[in-house]
Parts: sequence; structure tokens; C-alpha cells
Amino acid sequence: MSTFGTHFRVTTYGESHCLSVGCIVDGVPPGMELTEADIQPQMTRRRPGQSAITTPRNEKDKVEIQSGTEFGVTLGTPIGMRVMNENQRPKDYGNSTMDLYPRPSHADWTYLEKYGVKASSGGGRSSARETIGRVAAGAIAEKYLKLAHGIEIVAFTSSVGHEQLYPATADHPTPSTNPEFLKLIDEITREKVDEFLPVRCPDEQANDRMADLIAKYKQKEDSIGGNVTCVIRNVPSGLGEPCFDKMEAKLAHAMLSIPATKGFEIGSGFGGTRVPGSIHNDPFIVAPAPTGSAAASGAARAGIPRPRLTTKTNNSGGIQGGITNGAHIYFTVGFKPAATIGQSQATATYNETEGVLEAKGRHDPCVVPRAIPIVEAMAALVIMDALMAQNARQATRSLLPPLPNVISVQAAKRADEAAREEQQTINVETKN
Amino acid sequence: MSTFGTHFRVTTYGESHCLSVGCIVDGVPPGMELTEADIQPQMTRRRPGQSAITTPRNEKDKVEIQSGTEFGVTLGTPIGMRVMNENQRPKDYGNSTMDLYPRPSHADWTYLEKYGVKASSGGGRSSARETIGRVAAGAIAEKYLKLAHGIEIVAFTSSVGHEQLYPATADHPTPSTNPEFLKLIDEITREKVDEFLPVRCPDEQANDRMADLIAKYKQKEDSIGGNVTCVIRNVPSGLGEPCFDKMEAKLAHAMLSIPATKGFEIGSGFGGTRVPGSIHNDPFIVAPAPTGSAAASGAARAGIPRPRLTTKTNNSGGIQGGITNGAHIYFTVGFKPAATIGQSQATATYNETEGVLEAKGRHDPCVVPRAIPIVEAMAALVIMDALMAQNARQATRSLLPPLPNVISVQAAKRADEAAREEQQTINVETKN
Amino acid sequence: MSTFGTHFRVTTYGESHCLSVGCIVDGVPPGMELTEADIQPQMTRRRPGQSAITTPRNEKDKVEIQSGTEFGVTLGTPIGMRVMNENQRPKDYGNSTMDLYPRPSHADWTYLEKYGVKASSGGGRSSARETIGRVAAGAIAEKYLKLAHGIEIVAFTSSVGHEQLYPATADHPTPSTNPEFLKLIDEITREKVDEFLPVRCPDEQANDRMADLIAKYKQKEDSIGGNVTCVIRNVPSGLGEPCFDKMEAKLAHAMLSIPATKGFEIGSGFGGTRVPGSIHNDPFIVAPAPTGSAAASGAARAGIPRPRLTTKTNNSGGIQGGITNGAHIYFTVGFKPAATIGQSQATATYNETEGVLEAKGRHDPCVVPRAIPIVEAMAALVIMDALMAQNARQATRSLLPPLPNVISVQAAKRADEAAREEQQTINVETKN
Amino acid sequence: MSTFGTHFRVTTYGESHCLSVGCIVDGVPPGMELTEADIQPQMTRRRPGQSAITTPRNEKDKVEIQSGTEFGVTLGTPIGMRVMNENQRPKDYGNSTMDLYPRPSHADWTYLEKYGVKASSGGGRSSARETIGRVAAGAIAEKYLKLAHGIEIVAFTSSVGHEQLYPATADHPTPSTNPEFLKLIDEITREKVDEFLPVRCPDEQANDRMADLIAKYKQKEDSIGGNVTCVIRNVPSGLGEPCFDKMEAKLAHAMLSIPATKGFEIGSGFGGTRVPGSIHNDPFIVAPAPTGSAAASGAARAGIPRPRLTTKTNNSGGIQGGITNGAHIYFTVGFKPAATIGQSQATATYNETEGVLEAKGRHDPCVVPRAIPIVEAMAALVIMDALMAQNARQATRSLLPPLPNVISVQAAKRADEAAREEQQTINVETKN
Repeated sequence: MSTFGTHFRVTTYGESHCLSVGCIVDGVPPGMELTEADIQPQMTRRRPGQSAITTPRNEKDKVEIQSGTEFGVTLGTPIGMRVMNENQRPKDYGNSTMDLYPRPSHADWTYLEKYGVKASSGGGRSSARETIGRVAAGAIAEKYLKLAHGIEIVAFTSSVGHEQLYPATADHPTPSTNPEFLKLIDEITREKVDEFLPVRCPDEQANDRMADLIAKYKQKEDSIGGNVTCVIRNVPSGLGEPCFDKMEAKLAHAMLSIPATKGFEIGSGFGGTRVPGSIHNDPFIVAPAPTGSAAASGAARAGIPRPRLTTKTNNSGGIQGGITNGAHIYFTVGFKPAATIGQSQATATYNETEGVLEAKGRHDPCVVPRAIPIVEAMAALVIMDALMAQNARQATRSLLPPLPNVISVQAAKRADEAAREEQQTINVETKN
Repeated sequence: MSTFGTHFRVTTYGESHCLSVGCIVDGVPPGMELTEADIQPQMTRRRPGQSAITTPRNEKDKVEIQSGTEFGVTLGTPIGMRVMNENQRPKDYGNSTMDLYPRPSHADWTYLEKYGVKASSGGGRSSARETIGRVAAGAIAEKYLKLAHGIEIVAFTSSVGHEQLYPATADHPTPSTNPEFLKLIDEITREKVDEFLPVRCPDEQANDRMADLIAKYKQKEDSIGGNVTCVIRNVPSGLGEPCFDKMEAKLAHAMLSIPATKGFEIGSGFGGTRVPGSIHNDPFIVAPAPTGSAAASGAARAGIPRPRLTTKTNNSGGIQGGITNGAHIYFTVGFKPAATIGQSQATATYNETEGVLEAKGRHDPCVVPRAIPIVEAMAALVIMDALMAQNARQATRSLLPPLPNVISVQAAKRADEAAREEQQTINVETKN
Repeated sequence: MSTFGTHFRVTTYGESHCLSVGCIVDGVPPGMELTEADIQPQMTRRRPGQSAITTPRNEKDKVEIQSGTEFGVTLGTPIGMRVMNENQRPKDYGNSTMDLYPRPSHADWTYLEKYGVKASSGGGRSSARETIGRVAAGAIAEKYLKLAHGIEIVAFTSSVGHEQLYPATADHPTPSTNPEFLKLIDEITREKVDEFLPVRCPDEQANDRMADLIAKYKQKEDSIGGNVTCVIRNVPSGLGEPCFDKMEAKLAHAMLSIPATKGFEIGSGFGGTRVPGSIHNDPFIVAPAPTGSAAASGAARAGIPRPRLTTKTNNSGGIQGGITNGAHIYFTVGFKPAATIGQSQATATYNETEGVLEAKGRHDPCVVPRAIPIVEAMAALVIMDALMAQNARQATRSLLPPLPNVISVQAAKRADEAAREEQQTINVETKN
Repeated sequence: MSTFGTHFRVTTYGESHCLSVGCIVDGVPPGMELTEADIQPQMTRRRPGQSAITTPRNEKDKVEIQSGTEFGVTLGTPIGMRVMNENQRPKDYGNSTMDLYPRPSHADWTYLEKYGVKASSGGGRSSARETIGRVAAGAIAEKYLKLAHGIEIVAFTSSVGHEQLYPATADHPTPSTNPEFLKLIDEITREKVDEFLPVRCPDEQANDRMADLIAKYKQKEDSIGGNVTCVIRNVPSGLGEPCFDKMEAKLAHAMLSIPATKGFEIGSGFGGTRVPGSIHNDPFIVAPAPTGSAAASGAARAGIPRPRLTTKTNNSGGIQGGITNGAHIYFTVGFKPAATIGQSQATATYNETEGVLEAKGRHDPCVVPRAIPIVEAMAALVIMDALMAQNARQATRSLLPPLPNVISVQAAKRADEAAREEQQTINVETKN
């Protein structure tokens, strides 16, 4: 179904060739300032036509709030949003060749198998325009997360084809052990990423190599894939539900729901499978005091503490046992080469006849740069939903009488002091 | 929450140190033969203690059906299942050192941050025993899928540390273009995989190298990660919901919910991001007639056709636009090195005091081989749920009057014949 | 949350004073003819201003489909629908008196307690306009149900104040034992109901008495409540989920979610609690062959049989054990007197000051007649969702191999024949 | 499906003749003292065999916690609970007559229509034993609600057949305007109700009349229905979701999911439909300071205020616009006469043969008294789930910056003072 989230719930509608696309966002906290101006920037970052490398179609994508706010403030009721489809039936689709062939690696064939009805765009909702509702909803979540917890979500292009920002090395089979990578995710901002338009790889040399590679494939009327890496800073600890709804499981779900994705890695990722436990384990250290947006957040104002411990390394990617520990969450998403290419392709018609298909029109040779705000939006939706689930639990618990025999944080402290002497003895033993 | 699935819904309970672990499976089709004998084999494959390489603890894990069947036949009502915990409080946990330190890269710290209560096992439900309910539920789904559609789900170890079954090469940055890999997933069976116990890599040489690597880490009281690859054969076309609940998104969710996972790849995966669209796209060809278990399935008996087209290559991994196309679904899941290692680790106590932790007891140096039935179970749950969603849609649709102006499969055929001449002209053009 | 249903899922948005109200309907079967013309009639029946008795405001309520259809046929994707709000800030609200007082028995106070933000209409979504999305979604469900199963849903006014269509008598403490009532629900149509506009009580004398009573309260600037009774004919057997989601539980949920409702009765209802089991129990009889819309439905064309048994009486209201038995479902919903009255009311301000509130403007003295299409819409949503759940189960089961030892309908028949002799003996005994 | 609730989620399993019945309760707040002793009392109140009037079967119904607690304290993880079935196949069922006939007004026929498999108890889960899991889960919710908010839930028998505790009169067509009724629901306790065992009607004369009526029907081997009324005191304001999940809609859903229920009324109920708005509307008054369990609750300790306003009358039953206002919630549930009666019944076999069925065994002539703890349990589950939803919203909102232009309670106060003079003028006018 076209719904995502339990507490902060987004439902979207719309194909490429219908009247409009849009969404309903339910569960938005009441009393937050919100206008279209909060939403439009990410809509625009998602928009095609930002440079020569991306597709030259010129969509407008003006979002219009239908409900759920008054005088620029949220009411707590569902927020309806709508974006008109301007080119409701472009001539590049619907010609007789396209109608005869299911496009290879598109959704034309599978939509017909699923629904038994053929939409004029072929793959119905498997269109880039379907992501508009996600980005609009994500922008609302992002606004809240920034205000309440100083949460910052920044995605960037980390590879195009074989060109990688941090290639695996013998020392660093995963970027998660690479200090340069760790520094980057500590500091990167959206403004910095957008200095590297249209590729959005925040390293001048890598960005240039990627741009050249994309241009090469464009010239051949071919396409190429790549990776987006995303960091989420200042997430509270304790988010994510054990068992089926671990934080990384929800992030993976969210990311693999974006069109054209092929893979997801949390923290050290696949590279981390090659590192021994003695290196991969993240030892605990005392957490530094919060600074920046975390220190200026609503949570800080309300006296809600950040976790007292953090980890020295962060191969876990900010998640342990499916639950956030307060360290940076970071992950990488792989995108396949765009399926629509200008080259002719030998394939078969719906009617099982072999033939050759040539797609007309101008197409993105690489979808990775445009995917960045979509990755950020889906990340925001996951964090927001998990935050509200944890808020429900904590607020509910907070009214229970304190129990003397619960090994709570405070009880652990007291026990710890009592056991300090014993511990020193143990430490001596374990060091021998 | 501890619930997975909408139509075939699994809810689990249980920590390592409570009375029992178990689950309720709701939505099981009525009228299917089912006894504990259908479930126990996968429980036993999951069980530790199968060889020197895995942990020597000797658990029994006898599953007991509580409800939902009579005379060995399902009633359609929820099936309760229970497995007793035998070692309810092993002495290795709970000693004073373990109680002072949150174990690095375990869930001890995050569970305390989340719940404010410390379970004696540290990370509450983030225990290998939590997966028992999944495997039991998965076995029920698997039985149905085999009977109704001849679906076969087989997982195997595809890497341990740097030892890989199909390492990336310049020609094959992804195994999905490697004919050897494609042949393997076409033929592999669970029986074959279990010939390679305890590592479960179905290639003698790779299996030996992996066994040696695990032994090496075991000796160092260290641990190592690895990958599991899983293939699902004979899946009907049309499964998976567009937008948020794409088939690959649900699989990613399911897999990343398994403890210790770090990544997920569908089809060509991250390697596929390095291949141009002209190679990555999967052209359509006429599908061969079904054989084997698909031909002997309930669907075949009922005259439900397999798709008329399939793809020549399968970089898509059987999924296009989030919807299955009938080709093999295959994916890879990365597992981190086990967090519990015998080596001492410099870290901090709950009370922010630096110290050194040494874990006692015997632990798995590599969790990958035991994860195989868990991966299979979660895959079965995802497919079963998506199948029932699609069954609801198709059965509902089937009672509508046929429409002359719907471009259905049949209509497309007729249009195609009428347009054959035009098409031949076009083919000539597009070849020029 | 503003979502209803699992398989046929409706999400609504909109307050009275925002830009538009609308909904997204997910799960609509593909391949069904659908245009605004299918939806508008029920929108219009819901519309105020149909007579002197209902409120004279003249809303237009033109529904506009945004997505999910092409060339007048459903695609299977979500259907977005929108209705503009024309009078976005009527002058009757927002005057200083209204802003000072929470209106008695309105949602002004509870919305403020819940959200901490005051919408200009007071009770945010607790507005009659919120029901527009329900009626639009219900019209889609109704179209399907009629085509596929010949299902007919007809609601009518059964009481206004103390004026009742079938008052309880000593013989008939519940209408369910009253032959006149049973005949009415067998035959009633929407066309017939609308002959009795504006009250919509399909009995000339009762209708007149009710109209007089409403006029009396209107003159006093007061209001009065009443009941709507609804019948659903030709529902397939087997719908409704045991335990928590019994058919009557879902209907009760749906009906009590309509603004201003106070009660729900299924079948014999509260009157049925006064009748002994020997009368209340519905004995089984052989079902007659289907006629009318059931005989002309898609299900009939597909050879799907109606149940072989039905009940002689129908105190159950077509539901036993939470599951439909194929007999008419009927239920009654109670509506309170409209809270907005012209009379002055002694009450207190938000600021805890006692005072007197006088509501201006023209208001419905009785909401019952307008509620009729809303009751029908919610009934359609419940049936549609339950039907799809059952379709998922049956279609899934249909591919299992037949089992010799299942006591299926067929097995029961064979057993029955074998036991016929024994039975005759028993019958003789039990009659003695 | 067998799941109830979103945040506090109960999943049950079990038929009458399987190994055990039980449930999993997910979402229980961590850090609450909980043992079987908290749960058993309501289990025992539900148990048959408490007197000559109820059925003489002697079940034990000992609940056993499987998981989710340690040292008598909740961990926050799912709580598994189990109760053994002792009489797994009683001889009264399964004799040849019972196997031939679907019992009138039982679920035998509809279960067979739904599942196509016949359980030995006929109606599978439509058994009184299915309610065990509900009562166990409800007891956990009740414990929390009492500790955190001083919430008290008390149900009692309000009618048996035509014998009513507060019969409708011309003055009081609904008990909600009857001062005696209002006093009763203000003061009634479970201890008081149980003084009137076995009927549980807390008025000596009415109780005796009801006992006599039940005895009369018992003697005739017949059965009779009745009503349960339930009050919930000290509920916080702001609970219940607008639109589809109004508080009364969830309560109606919960109550109509209890076996044998026929109707639901909130507040004034159907009687309220006969009262004019000028009487039915509940004017606001200043709320008195909380006393009793509300004053001693966790919320009071935490300084969370009770609402400043309440209503003078309470025809609304504590809910306005679907949202609680802090006043007592009260509702009535109708139960039909038990379907199993000793009298012979003329009906038809599964095989469409007319005949006469005589049920053997001893049966409850009236299920109403035993239903009381089930009604209380379901009420607790509804309130608990709504409370957690509201806690999520409020806790999330609490970290937003305060907004000057929000018409909050405080802003309303200031506006109120400014407008006081104008208001006085208006009051003068409206009184004229």
C-alpha cells in the first residue's frame, strides 16, 4: 500500500500522467510553524533540469498545502499536499513502438502482470514523480527534527560507476574505519553538497571524475549507476524497535523503496564483514558535551540529556541491536544505471515477438544526484516515526512510581560505586 | 513492535532468560496439513552446536504447537508455538564484570537507553533466541509456498571475511553477470548446502578456505563476518506493492531485522551500480515452460499460468519496479563479526569509568552459517505476505466485468497482431 | 489517525476552513470503470440544502479525481480525490462570543485539550465536511460491491425523537421479529427512500410525524436526534474476522466514527436482549436460489455459489460469531440532537468564567436525514475491506491439495448420509 | 486478525479444544511491577462455575507469564502469557447429532463457510475461552492506568431480559439524565458489584428480580440476554483520534468484538436521541479539584493538571467530537440470550436436511454476569492504546518552540480578558 509510517504516516497518490501527485501526512505535531516555504526547497533540489547532466525537462513542482495548518501553524490534523502534473501525456510515451514493448528493466511488464491494466506511462506509479509526495512529507519531518533535537540529515554522492569517493583499501575495507570519511560525515552540510552541482560529490577531484564518467555514458546514449551516502547527526539514543523494526531495518526498507535502488549498507556495511570483531567492535567512551544544533534544540532547552556514553569508533553506524546510541547514523544506498537509454535494445514485445526497441526522448544518464533529497526525505520519515514511538513509551513510563529493584541507570550508578573496589581488582586480573 | 507482516502476520515473544520463546502466526491458510514435524527441521538447522566451529552449547529447541490445528490440519485460526528456554540464567552472564560494562557493539547500552531497565542478558530481545519464533513461522510459510507454487528458498554462505565464493572481477563487478553464479542459484538445494557443514558454502575449495579463516579467528579469540546469499525460485509474477512496499524493500526490511546484519543487495547489488545500463538492462525473451516443483504445484494443477515472458539476463534479481517478474529472486545479506569475543577490550562502564572487559564463555566466531535458516525463514515470510496481498487483489478483480477498452494482456495481444506490419517497418528503421 | 481499512484503505484530510477536503483510496481493484459520475450522486445526497428542513447553506461539493484512473478505468493505484472548500471562513464563526466559549457538546474544548491549538472552526476535523472523503470513497466501494456481488446498501430514517418507524411492543421488543420490518428491509431502495425527502423515512405517516417533530424543534431554535437503519443485501458468507475484527465490531467502529452518533445495534439489537434464546435463535433452512442483483452479479457469472443454508428468522442480522452467513445484514445507528442550537445556553468560557452563549447562523435541527449516505458509505467500506481479506484467504487456500481427513462441506455431506439412519432414531428420541 | 491495538498491542491465540490459549502483549511500559498475581483476579472473575446460576464446569485458568518480566518488573519487551486448556475434548461436543447440525445462532455454520474446515468445537475461536487472553492483557493495562492516572474501570449488570436497573421513563428516556444513575457510576466499585454475585447488579431489588428471571429461563432450558454498563473514571482529557478512531468508535469496536454482543451505547445512547439539544447539550462549568485515586496518581505527582473545565451534565459520556473531556466515560453493551439451550430446536443439517437438534450438557442461561470482566478488560485496552497515542503526540510537541500567534489556552485567556467588557454587553443582549 502507498502508506509509510505508523505515528508519522505518509500516504501518497499519483502517476506521471494523471491530474496531480500528492500526499497526506498524518501525525504532524500541532503548534509548529509550517508553510510551503518550508517544503519547496527540497522539492526544488529533487527537480530535474538543474544542469546539463540531468534531464532537461522543466517541471515546476510547486507544492500547495490543502489542510492541516492555519495562519502558518500546524493544527495536528492531516496535512494534504498537492503538486500539479503539467505534462500529462508527453508524446515520447505512447507511440506505437513503446506500446508494443515492455521496456527492459522498467516496470512496464511487472505492472501489467500485477494489475492487468496498462497505464499510458507503462509502469504506473513506478515513476520519478511518485517521489514528490515523499520529499514534501520528509521536509515536514525534517523541520520538526531540527527544531526539537537539532537533527541534521545530509546525503551526498559517494560513487558513480567505478569512481568512488572512498574506495576500499586493504587497510580500510570499509570507509567506516577511514578517518577522512569520518571527518567528512562530521562536517558535511547540504550547502557544501550543492556547491558540487550537478554531481553532488563533496570532493573536487572525485566530483570531476564522476562528472566526466557521466558525460561519457551520456554521449554513448547509455547510463551508469552509483551510490548515495547519508549521515544523520544528533539522533537521540533509544530509537528503533527491537526485533522486526530495528532502526537499520526501517532505514533499509525506506531506502530500497526508492526507485532504482539495488543495495543498502548501515555503518561499516559489507566492508565491515571483512574486519575482525576486535577491530569492528566499538568501545565505549565518555560522550563530549553537545554543541551546535543539538545544544540549541528544544530537547536541550527542556533539559533532556544527550547520552553519557558514546563509542570511540563508529562501525555500528550509530545503531546497536537495532536501537540508536546517539552517535552519527550513516548508510549508503546503491542506485542502478537508469533503465531508459537511447541505445537500441534487442528484446521482445508483449506479444512474445522478438524485436528491437529504441527509446526516444532525453533521459537522465545517472539518477544519483537527483536521488539525494529523496534519500534525505525517507531518512527523515524513518527517524520521525521511530522518535514518536519512543516518545509514546517514555512519556507513558514516566508516570510510573520509581522501583527500588529496577537496575535503572541511576541504580547502576549506585551499584557501580559500591562495586568500584571489586572492579579494580578485576581490571588488574583481566589485564594480566 | 514484535510483529511482521499484514496478511500472514507473525508476532514473537521471549528473551534468552525467560521461561520460553515463541510466536503467534495469524493468517495461515486453513486446510493445510501441518505438524511439528514440518517445523522442526529448520529449527534444528538454526540450532547451535552442530559442529566444532559453531558454539558448543547444546540447546534442544523442541517446538510445540499450542493452537490452530486439529488432527494435523490447519483451522485457519492463529497458530501459537512455544519453545522452552532451558538455560534460563547461565553463569557466564551476570557476573560482576559483565554487569558493570555495556558490551561493545552489543545491545546492552542501547536497551538501557531505550527501556531504562536492564535485563539480565543485557540486550533483552537482541538475542539469537529471539530468532526461534521467526524460523518456526517461516517453516509454515515455506510449506505453503512449496505446495501452492513450487517455491524453493535456498540460502548459503557466499563469503567469510575476505574469502568470497564469487569475488568481483573487472568483467564481473557483480556476480549477477557471472554464468557460474547463475548456474549455482539455478540448481542449489538445502541438501547440497548442508553437505558443506558447518560453513555451508556450496563449493569445496571456497568452503575450505572459509573454514580455515574461521578457525584462525577462533584461535585468536576473535570473530569474523561474512555474507549469506539466498535464491527464491518459482515466485509468481506480480508480487510486491508499488511505492513504499516494493518487494526488495520488504526483503531488505526483513533481512536487516536479523541480528548482526550490515547490508543488503538485491540482484546485481552494489556491483550493479558499476555496470552501464546497456549491460545491466534485462531484455525480455519468451519464458520456457515450467518444470520441476513449479510444474507440480497447486498453481499448475489449477491452470494458473506462469508468465509468458522472462528476462534473458537477471540483473534485476527477479524484481522490476518493486514487483516480481517470475525470474529467480536472489539477494545477499552481510553479517558483521560477532560482537562477543574472548579478547579483552578497553572500554567504559555504565558509570563512565574506563576499564577493560573480558567476556567469558564460548562464543561463535562466525554467525554466518547459523544465519542461513533465519534468512530463509524471513524470505518466506515476505513472499507469503506479498502473495496473499496479490491474491486479495486478483480474486477481487476477477469478478469485475471485462472491459473492451482496457489494454489488458489479451487486448495487447490483439493490438499487437494488428500492428505487426507496422512494427516490422519500425524494426527496420530502428536497426538503421 | 485518519485512515480506515486494511485492504481497501481510505485516508482523509481537511477541515471546514482550509483550501480543500479530500481523500486517498488505496486498494481499489484495477480494471473497473470509474469516473466522477459514479461518485457525485452520493456526494449530492449528503449535501446540505436539499430542503427547508436541512440547513440552507448552498455547497457545491464537486468531486475531482486526481489519480488512479485512465480513460475512465481504474489502474489499481491509489485514487486521490478532492473537493474545494468554498466558504473558507464564514462570518458566523470567529466572532468574539464564539471565540470565548467552547460550544457545549461540540468538540471545541476537547480539540483544544488534545492539540493545544485552536482552529478557527473550533473543532478542527470534527466537522460535517470531514465526511465528504468518506462518502467519495464509499461510492467506489459500493460500485464494486454491486458489480461483483450484487450487494445493495440502503439506509433510511427509522426514528426522530420519540417518533419511531417500528416502536417496540410487547410482542416485538425488537423490530427483528416484526414481519413488517423484515419486508421493508427486503425491498427498500434508495429511490424509495428519496421519495420521502427531506426526512427519508419510507413510510408516509411516520415520515409526516417526523417532519412535524423536526419543524417543531426548528421553531424553538432547538434540535432533535434520531436513528438511521441500514440494510446490506447479498453479502457473501464468510466475511468478518473472528475475535477482534468481527463484522459487527467493524460496523460498530465505522458507525460510531460518524459525527454525532450515540449508539449501534446489530440485528435484534438491545431489543434482542429481552427475548429468550428459544425465540432469538435463528434455525437453519435451505436457502432459496438467488434472484435480482445477486443473480446478475460477477460472482454469479463466475459460478461462485451463494450459501446452501440460510436462517428462517434473522435476529442475528446476517452475522453469527462475527462472520456473515449470507442473510441480510441490518443495523441501527443513533444520532444525538445537533449540538448547535439557536437558543442561548448558560455555560463557561475557556477562561472559566460563567456566561451565556448564543450561536448565530442557521443550523440543521436534525442531522439524521443527511447522515444516510454517510452510513451507507461507511457500511460499504467495511464490507469491501472484509471481502478483500476473505478473498486473500480463499484464493490462497484454493491452491492447496485437497485433504481426505478434513471435515469439509463435502465430507460432512458424506458423513451425513452414512449417519442418516442413526439421525432418524435420534430425532424420534428428541421429539419424545 | 487476532490483534487489537496499535501502541499497546494484544495478539491472542487458542480454541476451546487445543493445547492452550494465550496472548502476547506488546508495548507494555518498562519498569512496572508485574506478576501473575496482578492478572489472576480478573481471570478468576471471568471463570465459569462461580455459582449455581453460571455453568458448573470447573475450569482453573491459571495464567503463566512466559516473557517480558524479570524479578517481577516489566522489561518493555512483549509479555507472553499462557493458560492451559484442561478439558480438551469434552464429550458433550462431537456426538453424532452435534456433528450433523450447525447449531442455530452459533458460529458453526459461518466458520465452515469461512474456513472450509470444521473444528471439533464447531465455531473455532468463537468460544468463551478466546476471551481469556483479552482479560489477561486487560489486567496489565488496568494496572498501568490505575498507577499513572488513577483510572478506575467498573462494569456491572444493568439489565436481564426486561428487568432493568434504570428503566426508561418519560422524564428520563436515557439514564444519563437520571441523578440516581449518575450517583451510581460516580461511586460504584468492583467490590460492591461482586457483593451481588452471581448476577452482579449493584441494587438489591433489581438484582433479585434478575436472579429470579434467570432461574426461570434456566428451568425452561432456555436462555435470556441483558446489558452490561461500564464506567471509566479519571480518564485524562484529549484521548481519542478525530475522524475514524474516535474514542467511542474504538470502544464500540472493542465491545462488539466480545462474543454474543448485540449493541453499544455511549453516554446518553439511544435514549439520548429522544431528548432535545437544549437538554442534551452539556454546558461547561469549572472542574472541581481531583480527589481519590486521581489525586494519588503518577500524573498528579508529576504535576500534570486535570482539565480546568468539566461539564455540568454528562450526556456526552465523557467524549465530545471523539475526544475525551475528562468526565466519566460510560457506556452500555447488550448481550443476546445464550445460543446454546437445552430445548430442542427444529433446524436443518449441514446436508440441508430438516431435523430437530437437542443440545446436551449444562449451559449458562445468561452470559451477562461473566461478561463483566471482559468488558472491563476491553475498555482498559482501548484507553491504554489511546493514551499512548496521545502521549506520543504531546511528548513530541513539547519540544517545539512556543509560538506567539497560536491561539493556545493562554492566548485565549488573554483574549478573554480583553473581551470581557464586550462579553458582558453580549450577555445582556442574549438574555433579552
